[in-house]
Amino acid sequence: MNGAESLVRTLLAGGVDVCFANPGTSEMHFVAALDHVPGMRCVLGLFEGVVTGAADGYGRMAEKPASTLLHLGPGLGNGLANLHNAKKAASPIVNIVGEHASFHIKYDAPLTADIEGIARPVSHWVKTSPSSKTVAADGAAAIAAARAAPGQIATLILPADTAWNPADGIAQVPDVPARRKVAEDRVRNAADVLRGGEPALILMTGHVLVQKGLALAGAIGAKTGAKLMTQLSNKRLERGAGRVPVLRVPYVVAQALKVLEPFKHIILVGAKPPVSFFGYPDTPSEEHPPGCKLHRLAELDEDAIDALARVADLVGAKEKDAAVQQPKRPEMPTGAINLDSLAAALGAALPEGAIVVDESVTTGRGFFPLTAGAPPHDWLNNMGGSIGFGPPVATGAAIACPDRKVICLEGDGSAMYTIQALWTQARENLDVTTIVFANRGYQILKGELAAVGAGNPGRRALDMLEVDRPTIDFVAMGKSMGVPGTQVTDIDGFNKALAGAMRSQGPKLIEVVM
Amino acid sequence: MNGAESLVRTLLAGGVDVCFANPGTSEMHFVAALDHVPGMRCVLGLFEGVVTGAADGYGRMAEKPASTLLHLGPGLGNGLANLHNAKKAASPIVNIVGEHASFHIKYDAPLTADIEGIARPVSHWVKTSPSSKTVAADGAAAIAAARAAPGQIATLILPADTAWNPADGIAQVPDVPARRKVAEDRVRNAADVLRGGEPALILMTGHVLVQKGLALAGAIGAKTGAKLMTQLSNKRLERGAGRVPVLRVPYVVAQALKVLEPFKHIILVGAKPPVSFFGYPDTPSEEHPPGCKLHRLAELDEDAIDALARVADLVGAKEKDAAVQQPKRPEMPTGAINLDSLAAALGAALPEGAIVVDESVTTGRGFFPLTAGAPPHDWLNNMGGSIGFGPPVATGAAIACPDRKVICLEGDGSAMYTIQALWTQARENLDVTTIVFANRGYQILKGELAAVGAGNPGRRALDMLEVDRPTIDFVAMGKSMGVPGTQVTDIDGFNKALAGAMRSQGPKLIEVVM
Repeated sequence: MNGAESLVRTLLAGGVDVCFANPGTSEMHFVAALDHVPGMRCVLGLFEGVVTGAADGYGRMAEKPASTLLHLGPGLGNGLANLHNAKKAASPIVNIVGEHASFHIKYDAPLTADIEGIARPVSHWVKTSPSSKTVAADGAAAIAAARAAPGQIATLILPADTAWNPADGIAQVPDVPARRKVAEDRVRNAADVLRGGEPALILMTGHVLVQKGLALAGAIGAKTGAKLMTQLSNKRLERGAGRVPVLRVPYVVAQALKVLEPFKHIILVGAKPPVSFFGYPDTPSEEHPPGCKLHRLAELDEDAIDALARVADLVGAKEKDAAVQQPKRPEMPTGAINLDSLAAALGAALPEGAIVVDESVTTGRGFFPLTAGAPPHDWLNNMGGSIGFGPPVATGAAIACPDRKVICLEGDGSAMYTIQALWTQARENLDVTTIVFANRGYQILKGELAAVGAGNPGRRALDMLEVDRPTIDFVAMGKSMGVPGTQVTDIDGFNKALAGAMRSQGPKLIEVVM
Repeated sequence: MNGAESLVRTLLAGGVDVCFANPGTSEMHFVAALDHVPGMRCVLGLFEGVVTGAADGYGRMAEKPASTLLHLGPGLGNGLANLHNAKKAASPIVNIVGEHASFHIKYDAPLTADIEGIARPVSHWVKTSPSSKTVAADGAAAIAAARAAPGQIATLILPADTAWNPADGIAQVPDVPARRKVAEDRVRNAADVLRGGEPALILMTGHVLVQKGLALAGAIGAKTGAKLMTQLSNKRLERGAGRVPVLRVPYVVAQALKVLEPFKHIILVGAKPPVSFFGYPDTPSEEHPPGCKLHRLAELDEDAIDALARVADLVGAKEKDAAVQQPKRPEMPTGAINLDSLAAALGAALPEGAIVVDESVTTGRGFFPLTAGAPPHDWLNNMGGSIGFGPPVATGAAIACPDRKVICLEGDGSAMYTIQALWTQARENLDVTTIVFANRGYQILKGELAAVGAGNPGRRALDMLEVDRPTIDFVAMGKSMGVPGTQVTDIDGFNKALAGAMRSQGPKLIEVVM
C-alpha cells in the first residue's frame, strides 16, 4: 500500500467518501488509488472554484466533510474564494493539495509556490505531510480538524513522493467530540434579560437554525415577547410550513438600523453582533442602536440548541406554544417580471424538501416573505460575500442530497465566476435548477456607488458595473456544457419553465430577463 | 482630490494607463475617479483570473505594467493563479486591491480576509496604504517596484477610506533604473568556455530573446560552435524569418535528457539550470548530464544583451555571421487533423507580426519547427504552469498591441479555467483568434499517470482525466459571450477557418476536433 492508498482508505474509514477533484500530475497516485479502492465518489470540476464550492455545499447538507483534490498552489488559489466563503460559513472540508515531490521543491520549477502560505488565510488547519508513513495519520488529523464544531477547513498538502512511497496502513479517525455546553451564567443571564420585559431580540445563526432550535426560540419568543431574527447570511436555515418563521437582518444599512432600532437587548445565539457588510462614510459599522445591550448566549461552536432548551426551561416556555408558519402559497402571479412577481412565483412553486442556494444578490432580497409558507425547505446563503458561490454550492448540495430538488438563485454577474459548475451538473445528472436573474449588470454596485458617496456615475464608471455589451446568452452557455435551458421574458413564461423544471429530473437553467 | 483620484493620477503620471478591473464596493471611489480623470483605459473582466492574466499579457507586450483593480481578498484570490504565472514570467503588474474601510476591518464582516497573506505568495512587493495622504506615494512605489528589472508583481492594498478621504496630490514616480551590468569575470569565463572547444550550449530566457540578443547569441554560436536553446517556457520570444532560430528544451524528461546529453558546458543567460517540470520516481530532477558544467553568464535581472555583446567581442563573433532563419512556409496540408498537419497549417498561415499565446499543452509541443520560417512573430509561453493562462493573456496582449493579430493556441481543458475572457474580447472587439484543440481531455495527464508509475488507469481514474461526457460545444460557448466561431473536423476546414480569421478583424474562435 502506498501513501496515496493509505490516505484514500483513511478518508473512507473517517466517513469521507466524496472527493471533488481537479487533479494534476502531482495527484496522479491519488487518482490511481481510486481505481483499486472502492467507495470513494470522485466528482470532476473543470475549475477549482467549482471544486471548493461544491465541497462547501456538500458539507452544509451532509453535515460531514467531503475531500477536495487540488493541484499545487495555483490550483488551491483557484479554489480560494469559495474556501473563503466556506470558512466564513464554518463548513467542514478536507482539502488534499498536491505538492511537488519533496526532492523536487528546491529546484523552483514552474508550479513551485508557497502552498502553506496560500492555504493559511482560508484554512483553520494546515499541514504538509512529511512522509508516506505519516500521510494516513495526517489525513485522520485533517478529518478530525474538519469535523470539529462548528466545522472547519483543513488543508493537507501532499508532496508527490509521500503518495507513491510505501505506507504503513490506514489510521484511525477519532470520534467527533460533542459540542461544548454553554456555561450556566450565560443561560441565566439570557433568561433574566428575557424575563425583564424590555424589548429583546434573539439573533441566531449556525446549527441552531434547524426545526428543533427554531421551535425552542419560537417558544421563548411566545412566552417572553422576544423577537427572533437570523443573521443576513446563514449556513443553512430550515424554513417553510410547520416551522418557526424568521426574517434576516437586512443588507441595506438604513433598513438594518430601522429593524434593530426597537431593541434594548440582543441575545446572540451563534450570531455575531450585527455589523454592516461594508463600511461607509459617516455611517456606523455596528447596527444595533445606542444603548442596546448585547448578550452572548452561545458561541458558534457551542451547543446552542441545548442552551435554548435551558433558557426555555428557566422562563417556562413550551415548544407547543411557538408560532409556527401555516402552509400558504401566494397566488400564481401573471404579467411582468419584477421582484414581487418573482417572489410570488417562487413561493407558488417551491417543492417540499427543496434546497435553495441563494446567490440572487439584489434580486432576491425580498424573496423571504412570499416563500415562508411553502412546504418545508432549506435555504443556504453565501456567508463570505465572494460571488461565484451559487452554482458550485448547488452542485455539492445535490451530490449530498440526491433525492431533493436543488434550486440555485443566481445573479448574472455572479454566475459568470464559476459557470463551469454547469458542466459538472450535466456530467453527474444532478437535479439542480439554476435560475439566472439577468439584469445585465453588477446591479448591487450601482447602489453601492451611491452609498459610498460616489454616485451619479458617468459612462466610464458605468462600464465597470454593466455586463451587457455583449449580452450573455445563458441558455446557449448552459447548452454548450450539456445543461438544457429556457429564456423567459414574462412571469407566465417563468411560471411555466419553473413548473417544468420541478416536474422533471436533471439539471436545467432558466434565464430570467429582468 | 480624494485618495482614489490621487492614485489614478499618479498611475497615469507613471505611465500606467490601462486598468484591468473587476471592482466591488470597496473600489467604487476608484471607479468613480475614472469618470473625471481622463486617460485611463479601464477593461472589465467577468472573473479576476481574466483580469490578472490580461495584465500579464499586457506587461509582456507593452513592456510596462498595467494596473489591476480587484475586490478584497477573495477577488485577489480568484486572480491568484494567473498572478503566479505572471510572477514566474517576471511580468510587471501593479495590483490595486480594495480593502474594507480601516475602521470596519475589526468587525470581521463577511468579506474580511488576510489580504496581505493572500498577496504575498504571488507578489514581489506588498503594502497596505495607511491613509489617503499616502496613497499616491504608495502607488508610485508600487509602479517603481513593478518596473524593476526583470519585472515584478506589486500589490497595493487600499482601505476604502484611504480612497474617499482627502489627498495631498499626486506623487512622482522615479525613473526606471537601467539593468545591472554583468561582472567582467563572468563574461570572461563564458568566453573562455566557448573558446575551449568542448560542446557548449547557450541556454537563454528573458529579455535576451529579442532579435538583437538572439543575433548576438547566433554570432557566438557561428564562431564557436556553441548551440543555442531557450528554456521550455519563455516570457516572449521573437522568432520567424530573418531572426536567429532557437528550439526549446523539451517538456518530456527523456527527450530533454537526450537533447542535453551532448553538452559539456551550459552557459546560462537568464535561464535557470534545466530541471524537469515535475519530479518523478527514479528520475533525476536536473536535466543536464553528469559532468556537464553550468556557467552563469547573466541573471534574469541583469543586462544579458550587453553581456552577450561583450562575449561576442572577446571571441571575435560578428552578428552578420549568425545563421538566421530563411523565410519558409510549409505546404498547405490536407486531410486529417493531427499534430503534424496542425503545425503545417499554422506555419502556412501565421501572419507577420502575429502574437502567439501558446497554451496548447500536449497538442502544440511540435509546433516550433514548421512555424520557424513564418514571417516575424512573437511567441508567449506559460511560465508558471497553471492552466487558464491563454485567453486572458491573449486579451491583454491585444490591448497592448491593437495593430497585431493575436493567436491563442489553447487546450480544451485549459480553456475552461478562464473562458470568461472571451466576453472581454467581444466587448473590446479585440483581434484575437482562439484556437481550441478539443481532444476532450486533460491529455497531458494520461502521459503523466504513466510517468509517475501509476499507468493503466481504470474507469474511475480516467473519469478524472477526460472532459467529454458531456462534450463541450466551444462554438456555442463562444457565441454565448459574443465571439463568433467555427468547428472544424478536418485540416482543410481548419485552413479555411484560420485563413478567414486572419483576413478579418475582431475576436474569433476555432474549435479543432482532434
